[in-house]
Amino acid sequence: GKICVVIDVLRATTTVCAALDNGALSVIPVRDVEQALSLQKEGNLVGGERNGIKISEFDFGNSPKEYTPELIEHKKVVLTTTNGTKAIDLSSDAKEIFAASFANISALCAYLKSSDLDIVLFCAGWKNRVNLEDSLFAATVMHSLSDYCAPTGDSAQLLSQWYDGLDNNLTRGKILRNASHVHRFEKLGVTDLEYCITDDLHPVLPKLQNGELVDIHS
Amino acid sequence: GKICVVIDVLRATTTVCAALDNGALSVIPVRDVEQALSLQKEGNLVGGERNGIKISEFDFGNSPKEYTPELIEHKKVVLTTTNGTKAIDLSSDAKEIFAASFANISALCAYLKSSDLDIVLFCAGWKNRVNLEDSLFAATVMHSLSDYCAPTGDSAQLLSQWYDGLDNNLTRGKILRNASHVHRFEKLGVTDLEYCITDDLHPVLPKLQNGELVDIHS
Repeated sequence: GKICVVIDVLRATTTVCAALDNGALSVIPVRDVEQALSLQKEGNLVGGERNGIKISEFDFGNSPKEYTPELIEHKKVVLTTTNGTKAIDLSSDAKEIFAASFANISALCAYLKSSDLDIVLFCAGWKNRVNLEDSLFAATVMHSLSDYCAPTGDSAQLLSQWYDGLDNNLTRGKILRNASHVHRFEKLGVTDLEYCITDDLHPVLPKLQNGELVDIHS
Repeated sequence: GKICVVIDVLRATTTVCAALDNGALSVIPVRDVEQALSLQKEGNLVGGERNGIKISEFDFGNSPKEYTPELIEHKKVVLTTTNGTKAIDLSSDAKEIFAASFANISALCAYLKSSDLDIVLFCAGWKNRVNLEDSLFAATVMHSLSDYCAPTGDSAQLLSQWYDGLDNNLTRGKILRNASHVHRFEKLGVTDLEYCITDDLHPVLPKLQNGELVDIHS
């Protein structure tokens, strides 16, 4: 009976926001590469990655910059990623499931403030481990909601205290400068970091409905 | 090839320190209640809990205060707990495995400073979740070692930044006041919190050798 917000800042949920804002009808998160390839054979566009690297048969990787209007307008996009789409799958018991990232943080927070349901901020992390960027997003959301609700549970309290203690002069880029995923990006030559930590580039509200993420904001 | 420090502040690793400091020959961590009961039949003292509650057939629960010299001197104690002994079991690949808590923090840090091996601080947490008290201990150790080594990995960086941002006037008790385990203690009437967050009550160095935790400090 809760709202589950799935967070995979680098990059799955940022990519979901970009795709929907750029005109995709929906994003269909699937857990397996095989499932994605089978949906591709049925005529769908397919994107995603494993360990940060595009799968060769896919139409897109996992960079939000690839999902341009010319390529995806009025189309459905199937997406499978190392952590993000798995997290969506694991959330299936929730009453409402959203995909979120800095690209749609204001739209998300406005919705959460208007709802009476309990909220779970589900950080996808990296292979079942904590990561800094999803933690930073969750903490930023908690801070924004601090007049509406309080963090419960130890990890939420810890992230909230962490956020409150951060030096105000630190940019997000500085906070994340030694994040493992940022180092992974550097090794792979991925230049999406600034894009993925910028607020409100794609003010959509992707909600899971019948297995597809659709924008309920527009 | 690393040092693994297993941390279960409330209360398994505090209890290990108390037992060894009070004269137990060793503490034998086992994962299952059945295994513990079978070792009890062979004449060993057995302690532990599930979900914070003593198992009825056991000689001790999981309070460090129970392990008094009169009861345990020159004896071996078998211990099984919800999280702590499971974490020790999961660490078995490490080169050196220690049990640690605030009760032996100075002895631990002195040893870690003298070693060249990489260090893993393994927070047992609660049923695979983060908890505040083990996080606080790990962060305190990292702070103490900050002239010797730097945190790597996202969770270590996060804990380190959290610790650095905490208000210096906050006591450990205040930081943990809304910790889920502290609330669990209150419900169960357990009064071990202050004991378990006090430095150096039991300056032992419990190291796992042939399946038994023995004090290598004395």
